[in-house]
Amino acid sequence: MQSRNKFWVAIGLSVSMAMGGMALAQAKRDAIIQPIDDVTIENPAKVELGKKLWFDPRLSKSGFISCNSCHNLSMGGSDNLKTSIGHNWQEGPINSPTVLNSKYNFVQFWDGRAKDLKEQAGGPIANPKEMGFTHELAVEVVESIPGYVKEFQAVYGDQKITIDEITDAIAAFEEILVTPNSRFDQWLKGDDSALNEQELAGYNLFTTSGCIACHYGTAMGGSSFQKMGLMEEYVTENPAQGRVEVTGKDADRMMFKVPTLRNVELTYPYFHDGAAATLEEAVLTMGRLQLKRNYNDEEVSSIVAFLKTLTGDQPQLMMPILPPSVNETPKPVPFDKK
Amino acid sequence: MQSRNKFWVAIGLSVSMAMGGMALAQAKRDAIIQPIDDVTIENPAKVELGKKLWFDPRLSKSGFISCNSCHNLSMGGSDNLKTSIGHNWQEGPINSPTVLNSKYNFVQFWDGRAKDLKEQAGGPIANPKEMGFTHELAVEVVESIPGYVKEFQAVYGDQKITIDEITDAIAAFEEILVTPNSRFDQWLKGDDSALNEQELAGYNLFTTSGCIACHYGTAMGGSSFQKMGLMEEYVTENPAQGRVEVTGKDADRMMFKVPTLRNVELTYPYFHDGAAATLEEAVLTMGRLQLKRNYNDEEVSSIVAFLKTLTGDQPQLMMPILPPSVNETPKPVPFDKK
Repeated sequence: MQSRNKFWVAIGLSVSMAMGGMALAQAKRDAIIQPIDDVTIENPAKVELGKKLWFDPRLSKSGFISCNSCHNLSMGGSDNLKTSIGHNWQEGPINSPTVLNSKYNFVQFWDGRAKDLKEQAGGPIANPKEMGFTHELAVEVVESIPGYVKEFQAVYGDQKITIDEITDAIAAFEEILVTPNSRFDQWLKGDDSALNEQELAGYNLFTTSGCIACHYGTAMGGSSFQKMGLMEEYVTENPAQGRVEVTGKDADRMMFKVPTLRNVELTYPYFHDGAAATLEEAVLTMGRLQLKRNYNDEEVSSIVAFLKTLTGDQPQLMMPILPPSVNETPKPVPFDKK
Repeated sequence: MQSRNKFWVAIGLSVSMAMGGMALAQAKRDAIIQPIDDVTIENPAKVELGKKLWFDPRLSKSGFISCNSCHNLSMGGSDNLKTSIGHNWQEGPINSPTVLNSKYNFVQFWDGRAKDLKEQAGGPIANPKEMGFTHELAVEVVESIPGYVKEFQAVYGDQKITIDEITDAIAAFEEILVTPNSRFDQWLKGDDSALNEQELAGYNLFTTSGCIACHYGTAMGGSSFQKMGLMEEYVTENPAQGRVEVTGKDADRMMFKVPTLRNVELTYPYFHDGAAATLEEAVLTMGRLQLKRNYNDEEVSSIVAFLKTLTGDQPQLMMPILPPSVNETPKPVPFDKK
């Protein structure tokens, strides 16, 4: 199984790396975690359009919920709730993952049911527990708004707005939501002073005890599915079963996409069920369930100190001014009974 | 009664102004509507702090609703819903008025129960139908967050954060939310080409038929209470009774603060109950109920064309990055039963 193989390969790698002592630090820098590059915006008009759609609650049935409601770019690209609030205040099924650096994910959603950002973007709009709308109605709203029609024409060159274009523009905006220049990335790029002793000790422990086996790559996660509760069963009231809901294979039960650790200081609470309120709790639980390891207080503190060096520069965004609805624009339906 | 006196004084003024024909245009420019001035930010640190609080859903019980949820600065400072969605998806009692140019209001809220922006800002936080929190808990959350503590110290110079400081900072942010440079303001300042013939005809009708009697001042409204349904009773399912709920005086029944007309193209739907979906409907209803006048289609079109010249430059704001909660921060309670 691909993800399991990756796990052991990575564990092997980190153990061999741990042999080198202080010489190790340099070695690790070109290992399996890469710094986040600054973003280059290739199509500013498309990104600007996508930003408007991202912030536009008219893509929801109620006219109240936008992408940014649950992936709040003022709050690490998440909502900082255990599970999200959806249409009619329904409790969402799962913790809202950060949108930051999500372009590095090999698939999207916790269970990987979307192959890319564009496919993902269509999900919440039509999910009755989230934005509660339909793709058809979303298109109807957008194409009724002259300001949007003009922008879609400029970007896509046609008269007819489609859900495909709407999600393409949103995905183009999400592509720029990266967070370079964390202290850890500064260190990765060669600045020895960027991390202090405790943080470096935390990183060494992160590497040698096996966290890095799953949390590797640019996003330090997002590159594989892993079983939640590898060495010990994960006990939760959350009904999500992970990847099995996509594949139907029993072996995929409780297999979830490994979340990114980038900006993890901002994306509390943790896990697919949001059950871990603090980083300390998350580190302890992960050590025990995934690595059969009981970190002591000092170890937890050092790993947490390291994790807090993963907060990068947050996207600096101008609030978009949304083109107004016109008389013909279908009205939002915030209260179902009315 | 002060507001009634103002009404007739203004009507008198507009009627006498209507005598002058084309010479009138110049006369009106220094009459009872003033252009919006550019904003000068006197205390940028306080405004920046206020902006963060404005966008921070942690001032609500659920951790989901911020000031910006119902006064969305991407959407004319309103939510474009008939009545707002509050904690637990409760239907708000009244249409959410725009925050834009609200500093020009002589009092705040539709019924004027707050004397200024600072007093207003405390209302929704503690309203069980809106943000559903308490002032005490809001302070507890804010003072637990190191990033906020640092900023409050820099702005207010003391260790203890109070609700008074929180609302003061929010009000300071709201003070900068003005929208200068509308085409009408360009015209007011002397640019004859800023309005076309239809728009000018609309403005003349707005003046001569008496709209200006209530919609005067910089905000073109917000300077007096007026009875909704002056010449004919206003029929609505909305239970709000207006100013009487503050004064207890029967004469104040259905007396509401006159809303601003600035950016009215963006702040649909209209009236305290959000019952008028379009500007055309709002103009027709206002003419009939307040002025005993049945505007014909051409008149409605010209007034609406004029109203659309009142859209000013929207505040250009960087999305704030909110200081993260820490382990000690009280957790949001999005779902009451849990």
